[in-house]
Amino acid sequence: MPERDPVFRRLTLIGAGLLGSSVARVARERRDLAAEVVVTDRSVAVLDRVAALGFADQIEPDAGRAVAGADCVMLCAPVGAYAAIAAAIAPHLAPGAIVTDVGSTKVSVIRDVGPLLPPDVHFVPAHPLAGTEYSGPDAGFSTLFEGRWCLLTPQDGTSAVATERMADFWRRAGSMVEAMDPVHHDRVMAMVSHLPHLIAFTICGTADDLATEGEGAAATRPEVLKFAASGFRDFTRIAASDPVMWRDVFLNNREALLEMLARFTEDAQAMARAVRWGDASYIEDRIGRGRKIRQGLIEAKQA
Amino acid sequence: MPERDPVFRRLTLIGAGLLGSSVARVARERRDLAAEVVVTDRSVAVLDRVAALGFADQIEPDAGRAVAGADCVMLCAPVGAYAAIAAAIAPHLAPGAIVTDVGSTKVSVIRDVGPLLPPDVHFVPAHPLAGTEYSGPDAGFSTLFEGRWCLLTPQDGTSAVATERMADFWRRAGSMVEAMDPVHHDRVMAMVSHLPHLIAFTICGTADDLATEGEGAAATRPEVLKFAASGFRDFTRIAASDPVMWRDVFLNNREALLEMLARFTEDAQAMARAVRWGDASYIEDRIGRGRKIRQGLIEAKQA
Repeated sequence: MPERDPVFRRLTLIGAGLLGSSVARVARERRDLAAEVVVTDRSVAVLDRVAALGFADQIEPDAGRAVAGADCVMLCAPVGAYAAIAAAIAPHLAPGAIVTDVGSTKVSVIRDVGPLLPPDVHFVPAHPLAGTEYSGPDAGFSTLFEGRWCLLTPQDGTSAVATERMADFWRRAGSMVEAMDPVHHDRVMAMVSHLPHLIAFTICGTADDLATEGEGAAATRPEVLKFAASGFRDFTRIAASDPVMWRDVFLNNREALLEMLARFTEDAQAMARAVRWGDASYIEDRIGRGRKIRQGLIEAKQA
Repeated sequence: MPERDPVFRRLTLIGAGLLGSSVARVARERRDLAAEVVVTDRSVAVLDRVAALGFADQIEPDAGRAVAGADCVMLCAPVGAYAAIAAAIAPHLAPGAIVTDVGSTKVSVIRDVGPLLPPDVHFVPAHPLAGTEYSGPDAGFSTLFEGRWCLLTPQDGTSAVATERMADFWRRAGSMVEAMDPVHHDRVMAMVSHLPHLIAFTICGTADDLATEGEGAAATRPEVLKFAASGFRDFTRIAASDPVMWRDVFLNNREALLEMLARFTEDAQAMARAVRWGDASYIEDRIGRGRKIRQGLIEAKQA
């Protein structure tokens, strides 16, 4: 890696879960992302783990004190906590600092955080499309963002220099960066991420309920677990994701998520009707589309 | 492997797709499953591939001639074709032969095949829970059944000796064998396999439709493909499975599949209502169940 100045002098991460701890780790491992990494989290237990894991230059339990003097402040908490965090840090932000985030919704983040920030601060909302089904400071790793997309949703009036600094930051972390309109971002993510997660959580719940029916149940719990490899298992990986994070995503991308779920439900009901009335060619045609999408992924090397 | 007599003298496979070609391959690789493997398929193109791939001792385009003299006949075609196959082979079956299958539904198979078989033939329906998203004679491999379950659904009056021979066959192929009531089998599979496939096919179709809306679409096709790793991708693997096979499974396990889909739809609608009205604790509770199921899979070493 060629010697070059770090993008930021002092990077403050608010929240040290899977995402925050991964950003801290990659920043510590490379030296060109941030000269100094400050970590704050509302949980003392998490901060104790951060200290033990040793990926922060400074640990500061008070969010206001943590952001003082930082030229970049990154929100890495569930999006439902953003408004309270923004209110707490706003008076302490340094003039010219960049405030950014890693949240999975962007319209709600702009709505909740934007109005609370002082005018001399640059707000560059971001969404690195990276994660695993694990959570917490132990789950992070420095290569989490490698080869993954990071979507930036700057608004009219956002400084182009600040946006480019964030793009530079994520590229150095290994990501491919793209700018996107926040409303469009939320609809795309509702389809490719939020709806699949809602469906995965739901089918796991359906199976779990079924398995608790006892005597005469359609499938007992041992049977669900033993035979999960027949298809069900593919849904359980993403269904293991963090409940609080996903609860907040669903509540903060409500309209787009409900629209995509309504589309999916119509399609599932049409399939049910075809099954009930034996419409073989309809079923075959709809199944054929799945193959086409998979083929597209293989060609796009995303499979 | 200790020297032992093969389970069958002459095994005839009807259908040489992923499953049939895998059975042929494991039988050829080991020598204790069948002394001789005969393959028939209604497709000349498939039989040409079987010849080129060289995993059959004998290739016979006519199903009636293919089963003559066989002590085991295994149906490896889509379950919707079983009735026609049974009618075609019934007059040619050797007395004492075992007729079995690899189909994903069992009530329909017993309904469609059972009444057509001569009384001096043993009928032992079976369902190896093995497969991949690929299909055709090139997709098979000899280790497909290793460590996988094979469910047998013998009926009252099925010869215990014939059932035990099939169990022995599948254990030698590497599978774990369990007997199950056919009605129960179909309900368990509706939950852990058929419903997940229907949902995966459906969501792929929903995304595909969305991507074809053109100007103003919520997500374009390149976006769906580029950002699929955010969750959607987990659904596309099983959605790439064979359309004809799955069409037949859905149509032949109609009642159980529609019941499981109705349960899932209720649960998805309850989740939608909670999202719309901001019922955070309901959402969090349902999401938490996904984690529990995943944890169960990890503990059962099925993850």
